[in-house]
Amino acid sequence: MLDQHIREELRGVVGEAYYKDDPESLVTHSYDGTPMLQHLPDGVIYPASTAEVSAIMQILSKHRIPLISRGSGSNLCGGTVPVQGGVVMVMHRMNAILEVDMQNLTATVQPGLITKQFIEHIEGLGLFYPPDPSSMAISTIGGNIAECSGGLRGLKYGTTKDYVIGLECVLASGEVLRTGGKLMKDVAGYDLTKLLVGSEGTLAVITEATLKLIPPPKHKKTMLAMYKDLYGAARTVSKIIESRIIPATLEFMDNPTIRVVDDFAKLGLPRDMAAILLIEQDGEPEPVERDMARIADICREEQADQIQVACNQEEALKLLTARRSAFTALARLRPTTILEDATVPRSKIADMVLEINRIAEKHNVQICTFGHAGDGNLHPTATTDARDRDEVHRVEEAFEEIFEAAIRLGGTITGEHGVGLVKAPFLEWKVGKAGIEVMKGIKAAFDPYGILNPGKMFAKQARRRVVIGRG
Amino acid sequence: MLDQHIREELRGVVGEAYYKDDPESLVTHSYDGTPMLQHLPDGVIYPASTAEVSAIMQILSKHRIPLISRGSGSNLCGGTVPVQGGVVMVMHRMNAILEVDMQNLTATVQPGLITKQFIEHIEGLGLFYPPDPSSMAISTIGGNIAECSGGLRGLKYGTTKDYVIGLECVLASGEVLRTGGKLMKDVAGYDLTKLLVGSEGTLAVITEATLKLIPPPKHKKTMLAMYKDLYGAARTVSKIIESRIIPATLEFMDNPTIRVVDDFAKLGLPRDMAAILLIEQDGEPEPVERDMARIADICREEQADQIQVACNQEEALKLLTARRSAFTALARLRPTTILEDATVPRSKIADMVLEINRIAEKHNVQICTFGHAGDGNLHPTATTDARDRDEVHRVEEAFEEIFEAAIRLGGTITGEHGVGLVKAPFLEWKVGKAGIEVMKGIKAAFDPYGILNPGKMFAKQARRRVVIGRG
Repeated sequence: MLDQHIREELRGVVGEAYYKDDPESLVTHSYDGTPMLQHLPDGVIYPASTAEVSAIMQILSKHRIPLISRGSGSNLCGGTVPVQGGVVMVMHRMNAILEVDMQNLTATVQPGLITKQFIEHIEGLGLFYPPDPSSMAISTIGGNIAECSGGLRGLKYGTTKDYVIGLECVLASGEVLRTGGKLMKDVAGYDLTKLLVGSEGTLAVITEATLKLIPPPKHKKTMLAMYKDLYGAARTVSKIIESRIIPATLEFMDNPTIRVVDDFAKLGLPRDMAAILLIEQDGEPEPVERDMARIADICREEQADQIQVACNQEEALKLLTARRSAFTALARLRPTTILEDATVPRSKIADMVLEINRIAEKHNVQICTFGHAGDGNLHPTATTDARDRDEVHRVEEAFEEIFEAAIRLGGTITGEHGVGLVKAPFLEWKVGKAGIEVMKGIKAAFDPYGILNPGKMFAKQARRRVVIGRG
Repeated sequence: MLDQHIREELRGVVGEAYYKDDPESLVTHSYDGTPMLQHLPDGVIYPASTAEVSAIMQILSKHRIPLISRGSGSNLCGGTVPVQGGVVMVMHRMNAILEVDMQNLTATVQPGLITKQFIEHIEGLGLFYPPDPSSMAISTIGGNIAECSGGLRGLKYGTTKDYVIGLECVLASGEVLRTGGKLMKDVAGYDLTKLLVGSEGTLAVITEATLKLIPPPKHKKTMLAMYKDLYGAARTVSKIIESRIIPATLEFMDNPTIRVVDDFAKLGLPRDMAAILLIEQDGEPEPVERDMARIADICREEQADQIQVACNQEEALKLLTARRSAFTALARLRPTTILEDATVPRSKIADMVLEINRIAEKHNVQICTFGHAGDGNLHPTATTDARDRDEVHRVEEAFEEIFEAAIRLGGTITGEHGVGLVKAPFLEWKVGKAGIEVMKGIKAAFDPYGILNPGKMFAKQARRRVVIGRG
């Protein structure tokens, strides 16, 4: 618990009701969406304005107290666990849509806004905000910005980064910084906007964002293609892109995921398939139909066993549900679900899936794989039990080898979930010693005392990389 | 001139022929595309590989000698003028297309490659690299990355930043840093790739870039719309975007520019128009035709005096030439041409053009305005004579007021040309004191001794912002 006078200072800013340090509040904010990570904060604060955030940061900065800003905590990298204690700042009270500018096609919002509410509001105005992380029903725009969230539409439309064009944030010192604006182009100095997106709350507290909106596609078509041969599915992914078609969605589920999803959602999926691709194209009706016909041809060329095309929106939703429910379905299997995020060049999808399967077998753990095949972004997901220390250790060893394989295939340790606590020991594998040093320098430029989300992104010690021979 | 032993060290790396400090070489590299700025370097070096760049940086770092990396020097912000002496590093020998990966739709290139050569090579393979700065016939990909160059296709397709997905660069220390990769998604640590794009050679020397390619549009249509009323043209811009149409190109020329361009290119443009819009849409044939029909309707609603639609590619090229030749045409008028880069939210285009005209009149200088109206990115261009000190002073005062007006309208001091020397005194107007401090910290993280392109981006003293009353 913080000193009495600091608690009084903080309560003086937000009011009695909005600084809490009762045991329930502390426990509730000691973890996030990531399994097996927990640490109690010293307090929880709920600011209502940028001015309050600034005043809070001045107090915490003076006393060198850690600050962990968070939305709904749906991240999967331990990004909002207060591992060094301090104050958790919950942004939910700052959840307004401040403006939708129909002339400039921008929206200005507060960080605590729920992503899905925002998307629905925007769609109601006849516009489109593409980033659609699987967590969007509960995640916040601020959290999406902190983690640079992706989603099912990332292949064609890009991720959160591609839609954030301006930010207001509060630095560790309490100073307010504004970047970008309602501007399609701005090269006045270093691109702080894009730097802050994906900075995981370690550089500043985001208090307002200006987002780019685009015209919505007029038409959409959805299909499932099912394969007895994993490589056939993977070759389909490459061949679609090689054919100069960028689908809106190009998702993959392996056999174990198919079985689990079907048990959960009762969709009547064929349980003997090695892989299913979920493919969507959107845009103008005529080219969508042509693209989908060509994609179906490619699926057949690659020996797809069945192709199922949605005839209407309900059917499309049912097919999408199969993919969207993967995490939920897997989470029902066993007490602990660890969802990972290895990403490779999309031409390496098949190699990566085979590597994952080989590694899982080697360590005798259950790993199901699904993900954004078109992006090369896979989610190998281990189902385990946190109480079984030995099994959890084997899972950790397996994931370490999976990250190593991703790097070896020209990939990265995380495509859309972030580094947080979980990947911090592996960051150096991707960015090298020089990259770590530069990143630590950037961190120090924003946050000289290291009070913003400490313990994240940079590990005390990098994991030694053991290059493992194949087979 | 550098000490004999340092010159020998440098010649030892690149060979006798590739380090020069004869007067011709020094004078040739003492300036760039920006008027009225010149400073002699101490030497000029031409590396052939990343290893050579690294060895050079180790030598220069040891002796704390400035290094200014450059391509063709076509920038307009004084970005490559060696104002503090040192060594100019010309990247032209490193100009290879290392790989075009047809499965992942990426190209990996060296920085000295000429943009237009790259675009033509890619188009020959049936792919598309959209960034098309006006300088593309001479500019290099490395220079485009350093400045985050835009172009005529920026509105729909984005700028250089949106296509750089991986970089290899050499830090001031000589260490080699690799960022990103052939990856559509990568959130492993801070986004150094996007940070390096637009960093103007102040953070690292870029030695290799991995670029995203996209499928080319199948069809394109081009039109000119001519207005007797400036506001009609500006309202057309807003109304097109509001109608959920994002054209590939949406360019603007004011009356003085129209006259000058017509004198130069003999296109038979009507000389009594207040403004011309050049509008292109591309994509699938049917939606392109529909968009262009709707755009023509909007032009008519906004009292366009004439609409001219290109019937074929030659005619389209002729219309495009009108816009592309604006800078060249203006440069013929008087000895010195100062092309600026103020950018506003696109809904403020008309206000900004009126402000520019008012300010030009107030200071009795000639400023023609053209630019990327769809992006809100205007190029007010002063034609003057560097020998007329008094007039140049008035031009400078006018531009200062123009930057101030852009900021006041929610805009920025530069949309695509960069800060360099020219805008350094004004950077604080856009990013604030806190922004400057953070940016200086980032600079120090990459380049602790300040030897990379010193004197750029950060002014010794920020210009005091005089908020000028209107009218």
